[in-house]
This record gives sequence, structure tokens and C-alpha cells, in this order.
Amino acid sequence: MAVYTEVTAEELYALLQRYDIGPLTAFKGIAEGVENSNYFLGTGNGQFILTLYEKRVSAEDLPFFLGLMEHLAQSGVMCPTPVHDRAGRVLQTLAGKPAAIVTFLPGYSLQKPQPAHCRAVGAALAALHEGGLAFPLNRENALSLAGWAKLFASVGGVADKIAPGMSASLAHALEALSEEWPQNLPHGVIHADFFPDNVLFLNDAVSGVIDFYFACNDLFAYDLAICMNAWCFELDGAFNVTKAKALFNGYNSVRRLEPEETSALPILARGAAVRFFLTRLYDWYNTPDNAFVKRKDPTEYWRKLTFHQGVETPRAYGL
Amino acid sequence: MAVYTEVTAEELYALLQRYDIGPLTAFKGIAEGVENSNYFLGTGNGQFILTLYEKRVSAEDLPFFLGLMEHLAQSGVMCPTPVHDRAGRVLQTLAGKPAAIVTFLPGYSLQKPQPAHCRAVGAALAALHEGGLAFPLNRENALSLAGWAKLFASVGGVADKIAPGMSASLAHALEALSEEWPQNLPHGVIHADFFPDNVLFLNDAVSGVIDFYFACNDLFAYDLAICMNAWCFELDGAFNVTKAKALFNGYNSVRRLEPEETSALPILARGAAVRFFLTRLYDWYNTPDNAFVKRKDPTEYWRKLTFHQGVETPRAYGL
Repeated sequence: MAVYTEVTAEELYALLQRYDIGPLTAFKGIAEGVENSNYFLGTGNGQFILTLYEKRVSAEDLPFFLGLMEHLAQSGVMCPTPVHDRAGRVLQTLAGKPAAIVTFLPGYSLQKPQPAHCRAVGAALAALHEGGLAFPLNRENALSLAGWAKLFASVGGVADKIAPGMSASLAHALEALSEEWPQNLPHGVIHADFFPDNVLFLNDAVSGVIDFYFACNDLFAYDLAICMNAWCFELDGAFNVTKAKALFNGYNSVRRLEPEETSALPILARGAAVRFFLTRLYDWYNTPDNAFVKRKDPTEYWRKLTFHQGVETPRAYGL
Repeated sequence: MAVYTEVTAEELYALLQRYDIGPLTAFKGIAEGVENSNYFLGTGNGQFILTLYEKRVSAEDLPFFLGLMEHLAQSGVMCPTPVHDRAGRVLQTLAGKPAAIVTFLPGYSLQKPQPAHCRAVGAALAALHEGGLAFPLNRENALSLAGWAKLFASVGGVADKIAPGMSASLAHALEALSEEWPQNLPHGVIHADFFPDNVLFLNDAVSGVIDFYFACNDLFAYDLAICMNAWCFELDGAFNVTKAKALFNGYNSVRRLEPEETSALPILARGAAVRFFLTRLYDWYNTPDNAFVKRKDPTEYWRKLTFHQGVETPRAYGL
């Protein structure tokens, strides 16, 4: 949740002068997204989201993120479309921050997805992968193997505060991952944060995908592994194989997984678990107490890692 | 800003089953209001606000607040109207909290109001006072003289942390207020928190008044004094007599102030300054560092108190 930067109505008037989206009719801070400031913006032409990019998003990545959303929207993926001003620009400066106006998508996030929703999510992820194939820009995944090693070096030791020996286990897991990590799988633009928060539903169908601020170029099956971790575990930690089957069926209905991708899933799922364990661990010990952000429990992802370490073949996922 | 209680889409479906406002189309936490959780709610019938009442609002006061909004809306005051479910109920329980759906008002708050806006604000406040005349329920103002004395007893001493001697000055001010406080002025339902945050504008006209959770029965001129303190000082602390004149002109254009009300304004303005100084002082030292609420500087209201203590007659306000 976040509104870090206050925008005055007067600053907003000046910004909207540059656009052809009609007069301002509503403006409210909303609680959404990674560490950006987001506002619900009503104008004569409809509903929009105004985002101010805070320090966690690097300004040099914004052309990739905004360009990707526009490209995907034009490819038929339901995602926010950046709105151009009369001079054709998408990226603005507001209250001293980079800022953009994007279209508002109908829909709402689910907290308790059912298998049918997981199927729809799999199909939406595959459509995103296909939709991004022709996107010309590239962004390296800063949160893959090399990034995990860096994160481990800076916070890995703290894991022992959660449970003695966890830090050594984590070092072993990272070592195994860097030895076994697959190299030659199909790749392209991935969302990299396809969590329930970022997928909107309307009448049990996916109505939109939001928050592209971790998108990058990486393995498609790794994105699917992130997605499986986020959608197919129950609150009590149990892996729900029915949901996983539905997720893979949905994915295969749009883009068929290659046999090499399927067989790599257990290791990709371990990597995906390590990635979120490490960033949550980092945030847990580095988020100031007075921050507006709700810190997420890193141990949830430790349990997921442990589950995948016990997986011998993708049959455990219902494949 | 606030979303304290998470509501799942599933809980929301169940709630909307009871209403005739169409299917859910959007749901986002918004940053607005006192310490309640507020959500932007889109349905087939339009836009609404869903509020969950957190502990700072007493459940027994909710019929007063919701009844007042409905009464005022029916009297032509532009304010959120509580939506009735099919059984006629307005107050619900959601995620274990009292909750209500109200209509969404177009408009946005101004951070830099001009004199013309102050005139519109004065007229809107007077219309609210007139609109509430026939409202049958009563709510005592918990934040008048007796409430200030209680607050002073609990946090008055901390004022010396801001400046030595401030606590004794505050005690003197409270004593003077309780001796001089007017008793027989016109009274009725007041908003009691008519700040720029709570008044929405559209094309330089007031489009709505929100956040009635301090509303109570008290002196109309006291409400106007709160409003003057909130709208007629500049960021540098200077009193802007042009804005004050505009505010009073606007008020008088709808409900003419009686001579006794005008002459009581300096003392009412001191009381209004003390009220917000004390609650801000309390919040400053009692809000946990990790709360989502942005604490407001109490000394802003100390400077306003000092200004009004130097005022001999209402002529200082342009009257």
C-alpha cells in the first residue's frame, strides 16, 4: 500500500493541461502496487491510474516497463495502457518524481482463488509470454542467480535469527541452484511477479494484469514456477495439486510447455522460492518500522523451498 | 490514509448479495479519512465507497453519523449517501468490523485554496448547518471544553517537550476559555472537521463534503471558527484576511451570522485552535512509529492560538 508523495490538485491541473483526457473529476490516493505512489484519477474521458515512481523503481527502467505495457495492450493482453500526452510523451515529472498516467482496469484481486481461477491465470500468463515475443527492448533479470548471491551476501546471515542453521541450508540451496540452473529453455519477457495481487478478475475471468515493475527477460517456465508458488499453496502451507494441474492446463491451452521446461520445473520452483525468500528476508530486516509497507513473512517461502526440495519429478505437481 | 482491515473479494461478494447495486466491477483500498479503512468500490450501478469502522469511531455513534449523511443528502447537501440493502439496512458487519457502503462523490481536495474557494467553503458550511436543523438525533461534542480538560490532564505536560513553559500557557488558555466560553449562541449539527481534506471541489465549486465522523451538536459559529483556522492561514503561518472575509461572506450568503456570533469569534477561534493543538499533541506522542497514519504537527495550531490571543475584536478577521 502506498502514497509516498503528495500531489496537489494544482500540480495535477498543470499535468492534465498536456493531455486530451478531459477535465479532472476525481483524485484519490490508492493502496496498491510495489513501492510507488498510486492515485485513482477520474477525468471527463473515464478512469485512470496516476503512478509516481519512487526510489525502488529505477528511472532508466521506465521506458522498458511503460513500453512493455503498451506493447502488450496492443497485442491483446489486458493490462494498463500508458496514456500519451499531446506531444506523444508517456513519462512525465510530477512533484519531482517520474510519473505516468495509465488506463484503469476493471476487476479486483482474489484472496482465495479456486482451481478454475488458477486455470485462467495459467492461460493469462501464457498469453503474456506470447504477447511479449515481438517486444524489442530488453531488461536483464536483476533477481536471478547473480542477484540472489548478492542478496545472500548482504542478508543471508540473518536467516539464522529465524532458525539456527538456516543460513547454511540457504548457502547449500544456492550452490545447488547455480550448478543445476537450466540455460537453454524458451525465454522472453516475463512478468516475474504474477501474484494474486497483480491479477484482476471479473466474473471469474481474468480482466487484467497489473504491476509490471519486475518484468524482465528470463525463462518462461521460471515465470510459471513463480506463479505456481504464488497460486497453488494453501494458507496452511499445503501444496494443492488440483490448482497446479489447473494452472498448467491453462498455460498449455495457450502456449504448450516443451518437455525440457516441464522437467526443469522442480529446480525452477526452488529458485523461485529462494528469490522471494531472500527479498522478503531483506525487507523484513531492512524496512523501517514506520514504513507504510506491510512486510511479508519470509518463512512462507522457506516452507515452499523445503517442499520443492522434496520433489523428485514434475509428477508431484500433477504433470 | 488508511487500509487497516483487509477485505477479501469473497467477503465482498457475500455482502453485495444483500444489495441491489449490481455486480462487483472494481475494488481498491484508498488513502482517505480518519482512522477507518476505505475502499473504492465499483459495481454495475456506479461508484461507491466502502468504509470499515476501526476502533477510533465508536459503534454506538454510527447511527448518528450515517443518519446525518442521509438526512443532509436529502436536504440537498452534497455528501456521501449511505446505501440501503434490500432489507433496508445501512450498517453491516464485514471482516468483523462495522461497515457501510456510501455513494462516491466526484471532486478532489485542494491543497492551495484561493479566496474564491474560501467563499464557496463558507457557503457550503452554512448550507450544512441549515440542512441539519431538522435532524432528530443528537451527539454531544466530546471534544469541547470538558474534553479539552481531559486531554490536557493526559498529555498537557508533554507540551513542555516542545517548548518550556508551553504547558503552563496552555493551562492558562484553557482556564480563560472555560470562563469566557459563550453559551447562548445558535447551535445545531456541526461538521467539526471542515478541513480542506474533507471538502471536494470540481471546477472551482464545492462538489461534496465528506468525513462526518466528528459531527456533533455544538455552536454553529464554533464550526465556522474551526473552518477559519483550517482555510485562512498560509503555510508560513500568516493569517490571510482576504480569505477570511471571503469565508464569512460565503457563510453569510446562506445563513446570516448574528452579531453575538460575530463578536464571539475570537474566543471560539482560540477554542478551535486549542482543540486541534491538543489532539495533535496527543497523537504525536501516542501514535506508534509503525502506524499508517501521518502525524500532524501540533505546533501549527499553537501558532494559530497565539495569533487569536492577540486578536481584540472580530475586525482582525475582516469582519
